[in-house]
Amino acid sequence: MGNKIVIIGGAALGPKTAARVRRRDPDAEITIIERNDVYSYASCGTPFYIEGLIQDHKTLLRNNLGQIRDETFFKSQKDVKIYGRTEAIKINRAWRTVTVKDLDKGWIYDIPYNKLVLGMGASPVQPSIEGINLKGVHRLHTISDAISIKNAVNDGAEKIVIVGAGLIGMELCGAFPKASSITIIEMMNFVMPNLLDPEFSLLLQNYLKTKNIQVILGTKVQKILGKDGKVIGLETSNGVSYPADLIIIAVGVRPNTSLATEAGLDIGVTKAIKVNEFMQTNDPDIYAGGDCVENTHLLINKKVYIPLGSTANKHGRVIGDNITGGSTKFPGILGTTVFKVAEFNAGKTGLSEEEAKKEGFTPVSAIAPRTDISDYYPGAKMFILKLIADKASKKILGAQVIGAGEGIKRLDVIATILSCSGTVDDVANLDLGYAPPYSTAIDAVIHAANIIRNKIEGLANGITANELWQKIQSMDDFIILDVRTVSEIKNQPFIDNRLQHIPLEELRYRLREVNKNKEIFTICKTSVRAYEAERILRGAGYNKVKFLDGSLTAWPYQIN
Amino acid sequence: MGNKIVIIGGAALGPKTAARVRRRDPDAEITIIERNDVYSYASCGTPFYIEGLIQDHKTLLRNNLGQIRDETFFKSQKDVKIYGRTEAIKINRAWRTVTVKDLDKGWIYDIPYNKLVLGMGASPVQPSIEGINLKGVHRLHTISDAISIKNAVNDGAEKIVIVGAGLIGMELCGAFPKASSITIIEMMNFVMPNLLDPEFSLLLQNYLKTKNIQVILGTKVQKILGKDGKVIGLETSNGVSYPADLIIIAVGVRPNTSLATEAGLDIGVTKAIKVNEFMQTNDPDIYAGGDCVENTHLLINKKVYIPLGSTANKHGRVIGDNITGGSTKFPGILGTTVFKVAEFNAGKTGLSEEEAKKEGFTPVSAIAPRTDISDYYPGAKMFILKLIADKASKKILGAQVIGAGEGIKRLDVIATILSCSGTVDDVANLDLGYAPPYSTAIDAVIHAANIIRNKIEGLANGITANELWQKIQSMDDFIILDVRTVSEIKNQPFIDNRLQHIPLEELRYRLREVNKNKEIFTICKTSVRAYEAERILRGAGYNKVKFLDGSLTAWPYQIN
Repeated sequence: MGNKIVIIGGAALGPKTAARVRRRDPDAEITIIERNDVYSYASCGTPFYIEGLIQDHKTLLRNNLGQIRDETFFKSQKDVKIYGRTEAIKINRAWRTVTVKDLDKGWIYDIPYNKLVLGMGASPVQPSIEGINLKGVHRLHTISDAISIKNAVNDGAEKIVIVGAGLIGMELCGAFPKASSITIIEMMNFVMPNLLDPEFSLLLQNYLKTKNIQVILGTKVQKILGKDGKVIGLETSNGVSYPADLIIIAVGVRPNTSLATEAGLDIGVTKAIKVNEFMQTNDPDIYAGGDCVENTHLLINKKVYIPLGSTANKHGRVIGDNITGGSTKFPGILGTTVFKVAEFNAGKTGLSEEEAKKEGFTPVSAIAPRTDISDYYPGAKMFILKLIADKASKKILGAQVIGAGEGIKRLDVIATILSCSGTVDDVANLDLGYAPPYSTAIDAVIHAANIIRNKIEGLANGITANELWQKIQSMDDFIILDVRTVSEIKNQPFIDNRLQHIPLEELRYRLREVNKNKEIFTICKTSVRAYEAERILRGAGYNKVKFLDGSLTAWPYQIN
Repeated sequence: MGNKIVIIGGAALGPKTAARVRRRDPDAEITIIERNDVYSYASCGTPFYIEGLIQDHKTLLRNNLGQIRDETFFKSQKDVKIYGRTEAIKINRAWRTVTVKDLDKGWIYDIPYNKLVLGMGASPVQPSIEGINLKGVHRLHTISDAISIKNAVNDGAEKIVIVGAGLIGMELCGAFPKASSITIIEMMNFVMPNLLDPEFSLLLQNYLKTKNIQVILGTKVQKILGKDGKVIGLETSNGVSYPADLIIIAVGVRPNTSLATEAGLDIGVTKAIKVNEFMQTNDPDIYAGGDCVENTHLLINKKVYIPLGSTANKHGRVIGDNITGGSTKFPGILGTTVFKVAEFNAGKTGLSEEEAKKEGFTPVSAIAPRTDISDYYPGAKMFILKLIADKASKKILGAQVIGAGEGIKRLDVIATILSCSGTVDDVANLDLGYAPPYSTAIDAVIHAANIIRNKIEGLANGITANELWQKIQSMDDFIILDVRTVSEIKNQPFIDNRLQHIPLEELRYRLREVNKNKEIFTICKTSVRAYEAERILRGAGYNKVKFLDGSLTAWPYQIN
């Protein structure tokens, strides 16, 4: 008889584990237990199905050959038995069985295992708000959730309210191209509050506004308003009402851990299932992975709960190895998270600057607006890269990107450097592929690393947008030196009565016009010229000069 | 008086060095000597100007604000003096002067230096072929070369012959959308012979054929044929004639070293200027960088000559530091080279499999055809990644990509891993950004790393396209087991009388049809199913089974 492998959950971790086990052990008896009747589906694709980019929801159930991954598929291609519409209701560790319930027939029976794999995933948090069960209130977790939302849109829903400005909320912002109104409500003071640093959150928020999306921050939902059992709006904690015919609650997910808890398995500090580096629980015959477990953050060596499909796939391979006699470790994650918001690409890897400070680092950051490919090549688009390093060790700590340009793959380079504990010098020396259709001769990541090197050497002295904004709002006397060209200023004036304008090409000849005794903050479009101006002024003996990090491209406040 | 910095060459290395020096030393006297009258221009953009993607050649001379980088620009923005149309004719090390000649006025005079920087670049190799000076024979090195070619096209040239299938030759393949014929002639037996492994060269060659480009390999040009002083064609060493009204000679470049040689500076094994890790020649006051120097290849610790604009920019920063009191090292390069051929993206980083063997490694490779983004997301395109690792150490040695899909940024990830001496396990565990618009849940680089891990573990047993092709051409008896679906086979049949067809989903039930005594080679579209089939067969006791690496997507030979 073969090794009896039982897997609870058929979404991502389960099927991947099963496939890996089968490749290593032709004789294993592999069983997947799944509550629903769809398996191994592309749940990350649901926002794009709602948007209409993917016409048929079945596309998300199919592999790239058009085959639906159903019970027959798993049986014939992987020799894996799937019990669909079957819920695991109890793990009996002493007997090594799982008690399951057939949800259609009501039968309850036990399935024996030698090795058990927990891949129960996570569930969306369902806040207890009055009216949450009204028709028209949705969540987005499964394909059937997506179908419900899509049907509501097809039935005429056009006043959309999204509760929660996290990952799902952001991806949904672009999913309703025909809506008459889209409002997003977030309890915290920023969009993507746990991911991006404040200035990047503000840039994202500004972008949402340009897409006619109303962003309400620092506000809780009080109750959902209905009429005849159907949603008509929503009232916030500060008493404001927003009309709505479609509300999506996207306030995060929680790991499904009740089965594990009841079986006496250890739960971690993040409230997800605790596993060792072999993805093994405290019961040596029980492994767990995917959205129901916590991960080790490689940079801070702490447990974090960051559920992602790409991580689940890696877990599945590791578990598949280890329950078939292998000994494979999963080192951990960097929290790399990327998302598309309408036409903007955004994301983060490693630590944010705020997180870095909390962890005791002294971060130095660079904000580099840059075109994604050579600026003269057709289709070049701007994006902004923020790179963060530790001042003492020069080690890279993290990066964030935002913008229309291709920034996501730059994060991959930084994620790779983070995996290797690389420094800013390592990044600056990377031999990245350069040709005009793919990058600039000095790619954004190298440019950003050089800015940090300049800052650490004392050559570049930056002021952040927030710091300058605070100054502007004060009554202090200082100079904002705008070194852009006359036509740039005409198109996008920066208005403040402390502003002085000298185009960079004239600065060397007009130094006498600049007061040496005042603090000077140089600004331009991308900060390249503002930095050059800082160098010119410091070279001429001006000691109180700083350039605006990222300058106006990364400026998230009002400018006029 | 300030530090006198004299820089020979104003293309890429020179201006970058000058800018860096100025930022670090406001008092330095910086002088650039340049033969031509254009500076700091985007020579990498010339193929796209010829193609018509960039309308005005001046775009390549301008910065992103539309400012032409001329003498006035350098003077006002950088306080750098440029002597244009001035040729450096002698370096007098004893007196620390450079003798220069004003090419317009004929004046010859000496310019003193404290530190001298050599950035003379490279020149295209001009073979001594009969007819090479005929009107209509071009090279592509400068913007004026590009203008000449563009003018010839505008004047009706339409029968294009490109001599040399290297980087410039490849980029030019897409530059003549209205040509009536395009022929590329290469002395070696492969396109991009020194960059790609043979099977990737063949794939690129096949692609060129689909674009109606005639590829003539293993053939030298005997003479260029003319009439009335104008080119009319070309004759090869095997006596074949090709009509042509525009010929571009693109047989590589050679570093400009005569000034250095005459001054007694050391020349390296690659015939380029030899520098240490500070970019310093054997004269401590003379530095060199850009296309006239050789670099250290980081993987093999040998000198190589790989001139690239991105490297020149890095050199410039390092030299700028070191001639102003700094101590910055340039560690070396990985030979990362990327290029666009019509709609295909292609490139390489690190070592090819052939190079790895020559260097004494025992390479294990994976060929992974994969979509660049989730296959269900609109716009997903296929590309093929080849990843190479050392069997003993599991260290990554290199990678190559080719295809319509975005593969270039995957090379950047591998280049980053190479910089950190990472292993296949490191790559497999990378926390890369995943969302459907950006990648597959298991990205191509991770997928490829897993294939190599499977091969090293003995779980996956591959046969290369070339090995199978040799077998097919023999009289040997074996089975090619095609596990694709019926409709796939109908669309793209693989014809051989040793072929047997069993779709993967039926294989487990039809094992008795497969002869256990014969060698079996499994094939499918991307090798995912062929590998699965190998596992099924080996699980059933078949011991002589291998799957076709990369399967039919990466198959460069005839299939029917």
